[in-house]
Amino acid sequence: MTSQPSIILVRPQLGENIGAAARAMLNFGLTDMRLVAPRDGWPNPKATAMASGATRVLDGARVADDIAGAAEGCDYLFATTARPRDLEKPVHDPEGAMRAAREMIAQGRRVGILFGGERAGLANEDVARAQAIVTVPVNPEFASLNLAQCVLLMSYEWRRGAVEPLEAEAPDVAPVEDIERFARHWEQRLEDSGFFHPPEKAGHMKLTFRNFWSRMPLTRNDVQLMHGALRQLVRRRDG
Amino acid sequence: MTSQPSIILVRPQLGENIGAAARAMLNFGLTDMRLVAPRDGWPNPKATAMASGATRVLDGARVADDIAGAAEGCDYLFATTARPRDLEKPVHDPEGAMRAAREMIAQGRRVGILFGGERAGLANEDVARAQAIVTVPVNPEFASLNLAQCVLLMSYEWRRGAVEPLEAEAPDVAPVEDIERFARHWEQRLEDSGFFHPPEKAGHMKLTFRNFWSRMPLTRNDVQLMHGALRQLVRRRDG
Repeated sequence: MTSQPSIILVRPQLGENIGAAARAMLNFGLTDMRLVAPRDGWPNPKATAMASGATRVLDGARVADDIAGAAEGCDYLFATTARPRDLEKPVHDPEGAMRAAREMIAQGRRVGILFGGERAGLANEDVARAQAIVTVPVNPEFASLNLAQCVLLMSYEWRRGAVEPLEAEAPDVAPVEDIERFARHWEQRLEDSGFFHPPEKAGHMKLTFRNFWSRMPLTRNDVQLMHGALRQLVRRRDG
Repeated sequence: MTSQPSIILVRPQLGENIGAAARAMLNFGLTDMRLVAPRDGWPNPKATAMASGATRVLDGARVADDIAGAAEGCDYLFATTARPRDLEKPVHDPEGAMRAAREMIAQGRRVGILFGGERAGLANEDVARAQAIVTVPVNPEFASLNLAQCVLLMSYEWRRGAVEPLEAEAPDVAPVEDIERFARHWEQRLEDSGFFHPPEKAGHMKLTFRNFWSRMPLTRNDVQLMHGALRQLVRRRDG
């Protein structure tokens, strides 16, 4: 478990929220949960019911009476708080905190993240045990993140920096000559249908369509499809 | 509401989740919610109860029978899906999608994000109406994000990079309902011409064209031009 941060819930109240936090963790590949003095004891059937597929996170949870016991083995703690307090500690947003966590973990250090209980969050005494603060940049006029949502965002940020960003696969882009051939086909069919009327406007209208087709992000498949559609659209007229 | 993306819930089932989505939005400053055919009708007291401080998001929600109606005014739609499907559309992670959204909105464009219902997510026909796909990089072995969590992550990414929108002239981008109308026109003309043959392949072929037209960067002028061209191409056949 040294390769990822520990998620440490401090005096959580509702079992449902502990279960939901376990799911949020596992969604982003985190499995090391620790609990400080859960109000309703441990294990908690409501937590298990809510965790469904993520019960193994609960099963592995370490439970302790205080932060020191729960965070055993950790050498760096982040405290999540609704707003930074004047404690002369570094304050991170979730992205910056997880970047710092990755760097420390890469150096063999062991990182934990403290989350407060539902009613009042972390007490000043809890925050005092952390080396740094994390604050989610919520709308100051409506800042109602619950425990599991806060765990979700931190877990998301952990994984986000750990996986390669999605690279768009190179699409099967049609080469210029295919676009050219289709644009000519289109123009010819419209010409045959009498679209380019009156004659003095034909040049401009054709140019407009040339620009149109060259602006479109067509794949080779698209071009084949459109050739076929165009032939069919005019077929019975020709027949 | 042109300065932020619209959150469009497609056939959501539980009122609680609609309420939770409203809270998640407002946590990060988003207020433009739209609903496509909510299963239990609208308004929904369970949504209101869950939204608590965010009921104004619900009060302002536009409700419609289909995506075209709900997305009225939008000219670019992202579809959130659990995994990218082979649709030759750009695939973004949430950060990249919201970066792209900010750029478009800064240019005066109007962006919507489609979220599927709880049970099955977005249908292929829904995704076919979007210009691009967003996928949250979850743990592939445990990917159980619920609707409100998905809305939370997208809203978080929106706010995380939020900058003041620039004043810029809106390009003449065709709104979703215009694309929808043209795609139907195109489909009808091909139907009349006998293109969708054999019948067992018709559904797939129609979906391919829906995807085609929603991928194309069409302006209002383009759409008018194409309506005219299409009418003319088949005119003599009809006569």
